[in-house]
Amino acid sequence: MTICVTVWNENRHEKTNPEVRKIYPNGIHGAIADFLKDAGMDVNTATLDEPEHGLTDEILNKTDVLVWWGHIAHREVSDGIVDKVYHRVLDGMGLIVLHSGHFSKIFRRLMGTTCNLRWREIGEKERLWVIEPSHPIAEGIGNYIELPNTEMYGERFDIPAPETLVFVSWFAGGEVCRSGCCYTRGKGKIFYFRPGHETFPIFYNKEIQRVITNAAHWAAPVEGPLPRFGHIPKPLEDVS
Amino acid sequence: MTICVTVWNENRHEKTNPEVRKIYPNGIHGAIADFLKDAGMDVNTATLDEPEHGLTDEILNKTDVLVWWGHIAHREVSDGIVDKVYHRVLDGMGLIVLHSGHFSKIFRRLMGTTCNLRWREIGEKERLWVIEPSHPIAEGIGNYIELPNTEMYGERFDIPAPETLVFVSWFAGGEVCRSGCCYTRGKGKIFYFRPGHETFPIFYNKEIQRVITNAAHWAAPVEGPLPRFGHIPKPLEDVS
Amino acid sequence: MTICVTVWNENRHEKTNPEVRKIYPNGIHGAIADFLKDAGMDVNTATLDEPEHGLTDEILNKTDVLVWWGHIAHREVSDGIVDKVYHRVLDGMGLIVLHSGHFSKIFRRLMGTTCNLRWREIGEKERLWVIEPSHPIAEGIGNYIELPNTEMYGERFDIPAPETLVFVSWFAGGEVCRSGCCYTRGKGKIFYFRPGHETFPIFYNKEIQRVITNAAHWAAPVEGPLPRFGHIPKPLEDVS
Amino acid sequence: MTICVTVWNENRHEKTNPEVRKIYPNGIHGAIADFLKDAGMDVNTATLDEPEHGLTDEILNKTDVLVWWGHIAHREVSDGIVDKVYHRVLDGMGLIVLHSGHFSKIFRRLMGTTCNLRWREIGEKERLWVIEPSHPIAEGIGNYIELPNTEMYGERFDIPAPETLVFVSWFAGGEVCRSGCCYTRGKGKIFYFRPGHETFPIFYNKEIQRVITNAAHWAAPVEGPLPRFGHIPKPLEDVS
Repeated sequence: MTICVTVWNENRHEKTNPEVRKIYPNGIHGAIADFLKDAGMDVNTATLDEPEHGLTDEILNKTDVLVWWGHIAHREVSDGIVDKVYHRVLDGMGLIVLHSGHFSKIFRRLMGTTCNLRWREIGEKERLWVIEPSHPIAEGIGNYIELPNTEMYGERFDIPAPETLVFVSWFAGGEVCRSGCCYTRGKGKIFYFRPGHETFPIFYNKEIQRVITNAAHWAAPVEGPLPRFGHIPKPLEDVS
Repeated sequence: MTICVTVWNENRHEKTNPEVRKIYPNGIHGAIADFLKDAGMDVNTATLDEPEHGLTDEILNKTDVLVWWGHIAHREVSDGIVDKVYHRVLDGMGLIVLHSGHFSKIFRRLMGTTCNLRWREIGEKERLWVIEPSHPIAEGIGNYIELPNTEMYGERFDIPAPETLVFVSWFAGGEVCRSGCCYTRGKGKIFYFRPGHETFPIFYNKEIQRVITNAAHWAAPVEGPLPRFGHIPKPLEDVS
Repeated sequence: MTICVTVWNENRHEKTNPEVRKIYPNGIHGAIADFLKDAGMDVNTATLDEPEHGLTDEILNKTDVLVWWGHIAHREVSDGIVDKVYHRVLDGMGLIVLHSGHFSKIFRRLMGTTCNLRWREIGEKERLWVIEPSHPIAEGIGNYIELPNTEMYGERFDIPAPETLVFVSWFAGGEVCRSGCCYTRGKGKIFYFRPGHETFPIFYNKEIQRVITNAAHWAAPVEGPLPRFGHIPKPLEDVS
Repeated sequence: MTICVTVWNENRHEKTNPEVRKIYPNGIHGAIADFLKDAGMDVNTATLDEPEHGLTDEILNKTDVLVWWGHIAHREVSDGIVDKVYHRVLDGMGLIVLHSGHFSKIFRRLMGTTCNLRWREIGEKERLWVIEPSHPIAEGIGNYIELPNTEMYGERFDIPAPETLVFVSWFAGGEVCRSGCCYTRGKGKIFYFRPGHETFPIFYNKEIQRVITNAAHWAAPVEGPLPRFGHIPKPLEDVS
């Protein structure tokens, strides 16, 4: 069955910074949408400045997996929309949070922590080591992914311990980071993936594209039980 | 070093229901405070109707472990106080959430999920099986704790998978529940413990008292590193 | 791609006990093979009394997922064959261990514990509650699976804490059991599933069949990296 | 209560290599025993060439925590002794496995995997980042521990995902390693700690000493329930 992905992007750097526009002429969302389409997915994009940030009920209800990229305008995302996305995740929609999305309202709300970290922007080398080679998100990847120039994010990364830790990053400047982290919240699967930046062309890297594509497959909803919550007046057994 | 515990109680059933007052003449908080004092801890109590719900900065700042019991008035807990408690937990204060506290604002915020579950109130038997016999919270407990009459809480319990699952409950009416669950959020340790009710005298049970006492020891802050977050302009290495 | 499953069965009860033969005329392995074939898988069977227990190199090398059922003859399984299966699992072959297979040499070796538990055989009712409704192994299942007559297995079940706990069983006689447990060992995925018995017709239950089928999909190998182990004389960087 | 620690060392490098003898005149075990004694513990040492490798029943039965260092003679450790240590761990004895002990028989048996990894010995810099600042093993440690010259161990480290990941190492040469890993097996707690080498004076580093001391406190047995295993003929309830 075709997976329906919505790629959400703050899309602000692209509007104000010619350097970013040059690298991502159709926006970061456009670049991500392109490779997910090539992988056979049904892809929409949505951005902050659209009505309802492009995340109408209609769009959200048909979205299997939401990809989230934000950086300088996390506070401008309306609490009402965050609330809707939150409940869709708990109801089973997958969520892939990229790079600076670690500080987005939606990720912090789902994690229950500050999601704070160390960072440095000198274009240093990053090497993402595969920690769990049998995880579906690592399919088709080698022992590590090397990125010649990235922004550093380092530990302590204030997140709950991931249910599965798929990648750990090494940075030339001396730090490490849990950079591929799987979570379940309600019926929704969440993957945080560290790489991605507005001026380094990370999202054109074929291995990074492969990871995000794998993650969309992994995070797509499963038709499991619809839990029955609330008052159950009669015992299932006649034993009490 | 003496552990400083604050026992917080909504304290509403005690005011309106003579049956509850009879069982807990000094409130649920009073009963819990008594056995924690007997265990050598330095114990305060705080309740909803006090100014700032009894959780002033002064009290919170000296509290090592906060015990939380609420039921019918979760919504009356001010968001500002929840915010303060939340940040204290992330900074290292332990939190023990009892029974109906699963639906408290503070627990839901730290979990990132609805914390919903099934429930039934027919006074059925519960048996809490020890799943991890080597966990400090299980110290001094037998293979299981039996409670002759309890309110049932059953799965699906909408929480993130616990980091350690210490107890699983069996209910005569046919359900099971992950009833002793450990989490870390920021530098704070959290223990959710299912038993406890306003009209069943659960908090006088010696084994239940032992578990809560053990949990206070386990959740007390550790003098670990104070993570340095934010911009680290210079690399630790001269290698990039 | 078609998943290649080998169903291994001790096949001793079937030879000596007419009651078992009546329920499983083609052996437990035959019954399991049937529904996996119906699900489109490529299925072999293998049994203890065949040469090399039916697990020749040729068979093992082409097996994506091995299903294991044993009970009274665990000790007769040759250490050499266990060793081969062990290394195939570490290399990526999935393993589904059913019921009394908890005491098999292969499961104990992969777990590193005794895998001991409590048990009782009075044909009592079991109810398997779904704990993680979004896990692929729970696809198509309701809030719980009910089995009218089963052998009881109860906690403390001496296993490492599962990476994912998919099912917890309730038993009428008063116990609980972690009855659907996911593990990773090396590149291999392992699922322990509690139900299944030689005289209760568990493997004809459609929901049990669905769980085992789902587990075979989940446990099938992923084409992740082939880790490079051993001596790496030269640094990846020129920095030391 | 005083914790009784036994420090086990292969003690072969010390006998054949003058450089090692110079650094560790009383053996690696002697250096480790010294700082644990200073921390108030009751400490024995035991070595490979003693009768029963120094691990008699008398010694093992009174040991709360066993520290293990081995490197070139893992195969010479008798299977019978490994079996005894294994069962003592399952019964509650703590185990701290240091550095090259990752390849010891006892650690591999408890993990159920090969415990293989990458390694390089050029004396490069290692930095151990604290991942869980609230874990008792991180008490008194800063954001990271820096070792100027170490042997590198890198991912993929073929272990089961740790229950708690306390440290991740960065190496100047380009690798990362999960270098502080907590496990439970049976009633025993296990801590694998990567640093330590026969010619780099790692065990004189005060922070490394602090981590090992903390780990001994953490791994000491808890007086939890003694699980009852086996046949339980009568139901706990009269309901079946």
